[in-house]
Amino acid sequence: MRGICKMINQVGREIPDELLVRYGKKGFEGSYARDDEEYRKAAPTVRAVVDPKQEKQVGSIREALEKCGLKDGMVLSFHHHFRDGDYIVNMVMEQVNAMGVKDITICASSLGAAHDPVAALIEEGVVTGIQSSGVRGKIGEAISYGKLKTPAIIRSHGGRVRAIEEGDVHIDIAFIGAPTSDAFGNARGVGGKSDCGVLSYSMVDARYADRVVVITDCLVPFPNFPPSISMVDVDYVCVVDEIGNPAKIVSNAVRMTKDVRELKMAEYCTRLIELSPFFKDGFSFQTGAGGASLAVNTMLRPIMEEKDIHMSFAIGGITKPMCDLLDAGLVRNIVDAQAFDLGAIESIKNNPRHFEISTSEYANPMNKGAFVNKLDFVILGALEVDVDYNVNVVTGSDGIVRGAPGGHPDTAAGSNCSIIVAPLVRGRIPTVCDKVVTVVTPGEAVDIVVTDYGIAINPRRTDLIEAYKGCGLPICTIEELRDIAYSIVGTPDEIQFKDRVVGIIESRDGTILDVVREIKEYEFVE
Amino acid sequence: MRGICKMINQVGREIPDELLVRYGKKGFEGSYARDDEEYRKAAPTVRAVVDPKQEKQVGSIREALEKCGLKDGMVLSFHHHFRDGDYIVNMVMEQVNAMGVKDITICASSLGAAHDPVAALIEEGVVTGIQSSGVRGKIGEAISYGKLKTPAIIRSHGGRVRAIEEGDVHIDIAFIGAPTSDAFGNARGVGGKSDCGVLSYSMVDARYADRVVVITDCLVPFPNFPPSISMVDVDYVCVVDEIGNPAKIVSNAVRMTKDVRELKMAEYCTRLIELSPFFKDGFSFQTGAGGASLAVNTMLRPIMEEKDIHMSFAIGGITKPMCDLLDAGLVRNIVDAQAFDLGAIESIKNNPRHFEISTSEYANPMNKGAFVNKLDFVILGALEVDVDYNVNVVTGSDGIVRGAPGGHPDTAAGSNCSIIVAPLVRGRIPTVCDKVVTVVTPGEAVDIVVTDYGIAINPRRTDLIEAYKGCGLPICTIEELRDIAYSIVGTPDEIQFKDRVVGIIESRDGTILDVVREIKEYEFVE
Repeated sequence: MRGICKMINQVGREIPDELLVRYGKKGFEGSYARDDEEYRKAAPTVRAVVDPKQEKQVGSIREALEKCGLKDGMVLSFHHHFRDGDYIVNMVMEQVNAMGVKDITICASSLGAAHDPVAALIEEGVVTGIQSSGVRGKIGEAISYGKLKTPAIIRSHGGRVRAIEEGDVHIDIAFIGAPTSDAFGNARGVGGKSDCGVLSYSMVDARYADRVVVITDCLVPFPNFPPSISMVDVDYVCVVDEIGNPAKIVSNAVRMTKDVRELKMAEYCTRLIELSPFFKDGFSFQTGAGGASLAVNTMLRPIMEEKDIHMSFAIGGITKPMCDLLDAGLVRNIVDAQAFDLGAIESIKNNPRHFEISTSEYANPMNKGAFVNKLDFVILGALEVDVDYNVNVVTGSDGIVRGAPGGHPDTAAGSNCSIIVAPLVRGRIPTVCDKVVTVVTPGEAVDIVVTDYGIAINPRRTDLIEAYKGCGLPICTIEELRDIAYSIVGTPDEIQFKDRVVGIIESRDGTILDVVREIKEYEFVE
Repeated sequence: MRGICKMINQVGREIPDELLVRYGKKGFEGSYARDDEEYRKAAPTVRAVVDPKQEKQVGSIREALEKCGLKDGMVLSFHHHFRDGDYIVNMVMEQVNAMGVKDITICASSLGAAHDPVAALIEEGVVTGIQSSGVRGKIGEAISYGKLKTPAIIRSHGGRVRAIEEGDVHIDIAFIGAPTSDAFGNARGVGGKSDCGVLSYSMVDARYADRVVVITDCLVPFPNFPPSISMVDVDYVCVVDEIGNPAKIVSNAVRMTKDVRELKMAEYCTRLIELSPFFKDGFSFQTGAGGASLAVNTMLRPIMEEKDIHMSFAIGGITKPMCDLLDAGLVRNIVDAQAFDLGAIESIKNNPRHFEISTSEYANPMNKGAFVNKLDFVILGALEVDVDYNVNVVTGSDGIVRGAPGGHPDTAAGSNCSIIVAPLVRGRIPTVCDKVVTVVTPGEAVDIVVTDYGIAINPRRTDLIEAYKGCGLPICTIEELRDIAYSIVGTPDEIQFKDRVVGIIESRDGTILDVVREIKEYEFVE
């Protein structure tokens, strides 16, 4: 007789059989294992508006919830285009709580510090499920300390859309905070007093949820065109005082760096891009919002100008430095799934080559081909990278959930060249290590790791290793980077967890990549 | 013992029970009978493109058909944005025939004289089903003479989308003739050598078909943005020499009139609009492409200017006269589901307030609210109108299928004021009659009938009757119009049909409005 049965997946993680059975899932089998697979798409159960006399505007969020037939056990969805400035989740959940409803699952594109009040609802059993592409703040602590009744499901942006389109999660009611809407539900990311630029995350929710509620603080005349969300998918429209604070869209994640260490890594990245076989006219690019990533934008510019190389498209979370390249004609198109700063919001209002896309178009691995499939370069961050090139961007050095896969696994899998940029050590914590606490992006999708102490290239990428021969950059093995890191800060102790699984890290294709376990107070090992 | 059992539907038509059972349908019960009804939307079975190395371009239509797994009994869909200039249907069906495949159903947004070769495929059993919003030319004759194995299903534009979204018809392969596409399937109605303006009809096909093939004669660099059809729904891209002839988009249906009779009717219409309670700033409007309809555009202009009244949106098949009103600032938005002339195609390229919409957004009665629900006025044509205000736009005076409901039943049902414009007699044929041969738009949705001999207002519209009191227009009863018509051309003999049903006229909500029977050679009644 054995104890709990476990399978070992392709990235070497033990996944309890019980979980695989309960969720009807497989363990991760490789980034492209489901290529060419056929499946029937999910579909919502909708209510027809045949009679032209029907109106959609309701007086309050409470009335919308009542008309949608809110009840115990439902799945409610939200977008995070307002990031730390979002007011919608708390406004809706306050009413849900007031109505005495329990056992709600929140299916959000991301949850952050703005949603700390949800942690109390988790304790009270109002919220018993969390499915999100990111969890930060008190919600992350509630999850890691075992307060949530069911394991949180953490998915990449593409993976979230896949789960919705494939029917792994069925949204009962989608709530869409919209900068503008007409009274019939045509909603846009711009044009109001609280613009967020795009409504990309909500586009899929609107099409696959049974009921859709648009919440706006700026009602405009019909038709509000061109719409991000079409009236044909919207049941109710509710006008409130404020849907969010755009000033808080710019988080600490977005900053221009003067940090010498970051500038050094940005220089390495720029040179790696320039010397790669994919840097030619018509290349495509995604940067994150980290300091080094953003600096690469600036550093690439003179090289593009000198070599007369234009970018065909820039994608992802978009920031002003990329919009400046669009305005300068060096970028032909920006395809935007999230505005990371106010400059990006202004750009999409004014530059006709700056386009909104749905998150399915951005990164869903199981549609007929997403933008990430056409991506040349992506620059990504990491909390940890291990010697198998697996990356962790979800659990902190204390083992607590405090991060977001976002588009990390999607762009890494889709791109020709994925570059991870991270300082080799942060405080007393090594970034490159033997084994990441949590695998969020599998190593097979990671091509280059850039640190301030050197650059490691995934041995699978013999083409890149060849391309960089004799380039003068400090290229070494990933094991050497780990050794330097450990020599500086020492070999880290393993974080101690209980057995109970509190989070599931789903691969973008819906298989299970890793699990997060309940945190244990630190005990000294004798 | 009785013979064939029949039900009598809400417009007094006998619908054979056998048909209702075979198609799982009800008889028509009223325009808004299905309001608020819940249903689960249909969904396609799709094939995932996870691996970024997958390409979509194929060398020929034949290769696309083979890769899509074409086989006997499949449903193939097409759009008719090129109208009489379409080359796609024939190119595809030629290959289908060459592959020896049988028992194909063509589900098209419309079929016309350009598709006469399909009639031969009907005779040969290659094509055994036709579902369309319009049938003209030899295909119509083949249907009416009983050559097609199954009854043709005729649906309005909104009804076709409803049938697709509700799953009454499941498209195996959708073919989309696209003026431009990139190699990954982002397709647009403009930008190439054969522009058709919009791809509205195909938008729904792309989302609900299992396989989607874009056929273009102008391959452009990735990404072809903003797309009408997104790559996320496209399996294959095929480049051909020519997809169609835009010069033939302008059919006989679109012409500026100098006909005194038509100008008189246009004047009546203009005055009826002006005096109605719905003519105020922000009104909305659809004109057809008939001579009188188009003249109303021109006649309304000085009234709008004088009274400082602006149109919030113009919709439908779009022609240059409406685009001129947009350019002049008298129309705030054009929402376009079909470009009826080259002027409309130029306009959507150049005027940012001229928008493409999907046919679901245009008119699907079973989504959460289409544009037709927000329509004030629509001007429509008619082959026949009867004293119950029922309209026939499908069967000719010889009983043969040669017309198209198009958006007729949709806009009539959705609008505040539907106006039918038709000369009282055409040759020896009365337009206003006791009983139309085929009910295509139910009388309850028809508000005003304008003829060159007088105007009849549906008695249901007491508000309009009140509004026009003392206006000086020649308002009379519909029976009086019929009597004048019969006094001019005589009481018409009834067209003689066999018993066999060769066509089903589906109401926009999917119930059966009427049937078309096999034509019988004329026999003199003793």
